[in-house]
Amino acid sequence: MIGRAGTLPGMADESTRRIAIVGAGLAGSLMAVSLAQMGHAVTVYERRPDPREHGFQGGRSINLALSTRGITALERVGLAETVLDQAIPMRGRMVHKVDGELTYQPYSSNADDAINSVDRGRLNLTLLDAADQFDNVALRFGHRCLNVDLDRPAVAFENVENESFVEAEADLIIGADGAFSAVRRRLQLLDRFNYSQHYLEHGYKELTIPPADEIPGFAGSDHDGYALDPNALHIWPRGGFMMIALPNQDRSFTCTCFWPYRGPTGFDSIETREQIVPFFERHFPDAVPLMPTLEADYQANPTSSLVTVRCFPWHYEDKVVLIGDAAHAIVPFYGQGMNAAFEDCRILSEYIDELAPNWHGALETFTMHRKSNADAIADLAMDNFIEMRDKVGSKTFLLRKKVDQALHRIMPKTFTPLYNLITFTNTPYHEARQRAAAQDRLIISAGIALLVIILIAWLLLGFWLG
Amino acid sequence: MIGRAGTLPGMADESTRRIAIVGAGLAGSLMAVSLAQMGHAVTVYERRPDPREHGFQGGRSINLALSTRGITALERVGLAETVLDQAIPMRGRMVHKVDGELTYQPYSSNADDAINSVDRGRLNLTLLDAADQFDNVALRFGHRCLNVDLDRPAVAFENVENESFVEAEADLIIGADGAFSAVRRRLQLLDRFNYSQHYLEHGYKELTIPPADEIPGFAGSDHDGYALDPNALHIWPRGGFMMIALPNQDRSFTCTCFWPYRGPTGFDSIETREQIVPFFERHFPDAVPLMPTLEADYQANPTSSLVTVRCFPWHYEDKVVLIGDAAHAIVPFYGQGMNAAFEDCRILSEYIDELAPNWHGALETFTMHRKSNADAIADLAMDNFIEMRDKVGSKTFLLRKKVDQALHRIMPKTFTPLYNLITFTNTPYHEARQRAAAQDRLIISAGIALLVIILIAWLLLGFWLG
Repeated sequence: MIGRAGTLPGMADESTRRIAIVGAGLAGSLMAVSLAQMGHAVTVYERRPDPREHGFQGGRSINLALSTRGITALERVGLAETVLDQAIPMRGRMVHKVDGELTYQPYSSNADDAINSVDRGRLNLTLLDAADQFDNVALRFGHRCLNVDLDRPAVAFENVENESFVEAEADLIIGADGAFSAVRRRLQLLDRFNYSQHYLEHGYKELTIPPADEIPGFAGSDHDGYALDPNALHIWPRGGFMMIALPNQDRSFTCTCFWPYRGPTGFDSIETREQIVPFFERHFPDAVPLMPTLEADYQANPTSSLVTVRCFPWHYEDKVVLIGDAAHAIVPFYGQGMNAAFEDCRILSEYIDELAPNWHGALETFTMHRKSNADAIADLAMDNFIEMRDKVGSKTFLLRKKVDQALHRIMPKTFTPLYNLITFTNTPYHEARQRAAAQDRLIISAGIALLVIILIAWLLLGFWLG
Repeated sequence: MIGRAGTLPGMADESTRRIAIVGAGLAGSLMAVSLAQMGHAVTVYERRPDPREHGFQGGRSINLALSTRGITALERVGLAETVLDQAIPMRGRMVHKVDGELTYQPYSSNADDAINSVDRGRLNLTLLDAADQFDNVALRFGHRCLNVDLDRPAVAFENVENESFVEAEADLIIGADGAFSAVRRRLQLLDRFNYSQHYLEHGYKELTIPPADEIPGFAGSDHDGYALDPNALHIWPRGGFMMIALPNQDRSFTCTCFWPYRGPTGFDSIETREQIVPFFERHFPDAVPLMPTLEADYQANPTSSLVTVRCFPWHYEDKVVLIGDAAHAIVPFYGQGMNAAFEDCRILSEYIDELAPNWHGALETFTMHRKSNADAIADLAMDNFIEMRDKVGSKTFLLRKKVDQALHRIMPKTFTPLYNLITFTNTPYHEARQRAAAQDRLIISAGIALLVIILIAWLLLGFWLG
């Protein structure tokens, strides 16, 4: 559906709206494409300079795991294929023990299921380029949101380049400006607006494993020029802290350390450059030879915090609505931040399609439908941190995963493990969690029934034998 | 200890600090008195005009229940007697059923225990007057906090009267500016500052029962000119919603309706003036004849929201600290909002006394000590809403209260009911909650033991008789 540029059949329509999107990140630029296809007049405002001229700046992490929800949303606007061409499929977890032992855990018994490592910057450029093809989309970079007049509605910006002030009136304002949303900060001042921001005791720092041929002394790669298997998400679970690595198309990996800020395995336990390698030698010994720039990267890259943001409601009348991290920032441990944001774009677009010109109804239905789902994935993402750092290395966990995937293989329609429901379906998050809980109860009941049968059989056998 | 005015023995001392308090409400003005007594140079900034010139403006509710924690804090600065002279002791709850039946529940088996109805405006004036007696206290009204420079530290104010801008530098800034604290809003922008604001589905509206002789057709009062017993807190519990009334020294009562915003018993169910009296006739029939201005009051008085605010940490280095509602706004159902704020003042003062000149240590110890206690009373206040509106009218609840007070009478040292621990002691809130939970377990165990003994006795008796 891409490429309506030049033809604006919807523009004359009664239902056409002037829409201002604050934030040209992943959610904002995808939403712009979607609304442009529906014929609306869209202007996107972004605080940062144009990444196509100045290079991509910042954002939280360098690569992200795109899965079914994100892909479905991209398919809706005709961009899935383009994006998947830039991605590397990861079909399972590769767990690295301290002694170097590797255990591979496939994500699904279905060989087609994979999560896809994509480069945040490149993906954002792809979405911006797609939006820019539309005559009914205008992109305004270097615009910092200062305030929102909810009732007109209008947004006040500072034009960062010339330090002038700009005011943009619109019919609808979409806040897609991330976890520290300025649009949301205005909503927060409303009476009866519920809001919370909760930080983890853990932070994160990114490091690099370069392509195999750039690692001095590397013996040669079995992995197509990668230093590790590129079709897996690598985890070094250490109980209370961990490191992960995701592949990039340039055959490097981006590693992320999730450690507590404080304590014996915390960021504050490394005070000098000399302490960096010994710490990694102790906890991640097999990674050290793959990280020739470890010391420099560790010192150069920031330690960033991890926040969960919840709020309610996400909209103000028919005038303002929040999407993505602005409405529900979550921790990254389920790989669902971007996927949930893209799902917001799809579902909001669908409600607008269905209910316009009742925009108030569309925004309210969106808020009511998405809030419980956003809360569910926020909780699950937090739970998954504990799973990834503590349980993923354990034998019981491995056994349970095997039982789950076996049941899924035998009864693919009846039994789908929670991870698969979240990652490989579009089942609403809240419903997925409820369904998984019901499945858990079923497994426990079946286990108890099995034990009873064994006990009876054993008694009968004893009786029969003698 | 009041009345060091004119003599400033502490001023020459090394440990003397310039302290800016933002907010001259209950917490801010009491903190000013306390710090002034310790010899510090205190300036209090308040957004509103001077209530001594312009009359008292706004604030959340007209009267408040002062109890042990608040009294202890006032005693520390020598103001308890003055304040208690303005108060009316309430020794129990008077429950009003729909059929007009009254049930009295004493708060304590100790006849001296009472909560004290005080007028918010008058109490605030008393505290301001006390602060104003000190040469080392300056009061600045009409100063609206715009921003805080955390690192200097300094506060930027707008002088509301002449619309000029003022900047105040200090060694320490105390944010005592209430649930919507501007000082806290600045802290909220710090990385890793946890924050939540959660609104109840219920709102509140204040109404009036005038003195008996101002009620047309009132038969004459048994209660010293009051229309109801002034030594009780009156409750009309209706399951899901309620009304309460507290006595004032002018022999009137202030009633507060706590109703949901929406639904058949919600504020939105009354749309016209004609619907007001019938609603009250149906749910609070015995109160209607006592409220000659019901219709006018209902329409004139606002419906206000009820918020719980939690945040962490409450301080920034040795430079900024939050107290009272700014740190921990709670719902009013335990009557502890002001008491907790006054306790903050006492405990912060004690840590400063103990640890100065280590101001950072004092603020940090204060935050660490108080946070879990503030969380505990926030939870308890929410729980007590359910108790007041739903359970307080039930027979089981009444029986349990009687058992509790009987046990307290028999073993006053061993057994103190939760309500008494919270209201009539200075036991830290968190500890009080833990102790009450242990007592609950004990009662349950004792109950089970009793049942077992009865069962055994019954069996033995059967055996012996049979």
